[in-house]
Amino acid sequence: MYRQLRDHIEKISPLTDQEYDLVCAQFEYRKFRKHQYLTQVGEPVKYHYFVLSGLLKLVFTTENGKQHIVSFAAEDWWESDFYAFFTKTMATMSLECIEDTEVLCLSLDGYRYLCATFHKMEHFFLEKANYGFIGAQRRIISSLTSDAKERFEQLQKQYPFLIQRIPKSLIAAYLGVSRETLSRLY
Amino acid sequence: MYRQLRDHIEKISPLTDQEYDLVCAQFEYRKFRKHQYLTQVGEPVKYHYFVLSGLLKLVFTTENGKQHIVSFAAEDWWESDFYAFFTKTMATMSLECIEDTEVLCLSLDGYRYLCATFHKMEHFFLEKANYGFIGAQRRIISSLTSDAKERFEQLQKQYPFLIQRIPKSLIAAYLGVSRETLSRLY
Repeated sequence: MYRQLRDHIEKISPLTDQEYDLVCAQFEYRKFRKHQYLTQVGEPVKYHYFVLSGLLKLVFTTENGKQHIVSFAAEDWWESDFYAFFTKTMATMSLECIEDTEVLCLSLDGYRYLCATFHKMEHFFLEKANYGFIGAQRRIISSLTSDAKERFEQLQKQYPFLIQRIPKSLIAAYLGVSRETLSRLY
Repeated sequence: MYRQLRDHIEKISPLTDQEYDLVCAQFEYRKFRKHQYLTQVGEPVKYHYFVLSGLLKLVFTTENGKQHIVSFAAEDWWESDFYAFFTKTMATMSLECIEDTEVLCLSLDGYRYLCATFHKMEHFFLEKANYGFIGAQRRIISSLTSDAKERFEQLQKQYPFLIQRIPKSLIAAYLGVSRETLSRLY
């Protein structure tokens, strides 16, 4: 079941059929429509999400109501408000569908069970976490050193398929520029 | 040996004496003077560093020679140019001492050996990586949503001891503001 999840995990950690059955049993399939929320600010964050299809945005909203996009998540990406998920605190970010989206949901108990039971799964999540950290660090460098044009070109180069699927207003909210500034870039 | 490293690891993963001896054997002690480089741009990044004492800065320098501080690392922190370390490519950031610094150096082979041999160590590094990612994500949110004053106050609140030890010019390079702007803040 969920061949896509198995293929994704096995790029890092090959599993036997029996192991994969136990891994798979920790995930719950859910389907959301465009504009639906997976998590909302102020509510508990029950799951770490693996995206099967569709597109999500992780959004931080400031007190004046301005939305900032912390990250996007498309097929084969993992997404959550990780601080709230791991510390069992309330969400400070919302996770919302940009397209109709199918996900596999992993609870914190499920995550802990997989890591404790299968050394291979702890290894898998460590590899993902290290590359997640590297990606976040690159974004910090980009925000410190690049102007809007350069940040847009980096996004375009890194995720060419995303640019086609995301409304311009959301790309602007990700780059931290106004819609007008973005319009001058493409 | 290196009681500090053992205490640090055992906050997450308790180890037997025998296990710790094997863990410890993967680390190499080194001492650097203020202003010395642990890694330089364009050179291989051989180690992941655990700081025993002192203070480091991880610096990204743009083509025009401007220095941006990606992170600081003090006692009990882990630091490296992680992308270069994990992918065995050349450093794009430099790691330099702000104070005389003692570190324990872990090679990529040593890191892989510890993770493969001890499920507990893979768990330890996963916990560190998850919290590293969360910290980086918070910095991204801060850069998207906060002005210089707010970013300075966040730094002051999060790491009060750092503010005392770091020259103002470096705090400005971390916050992404000019020295003059920072002077108006404290």
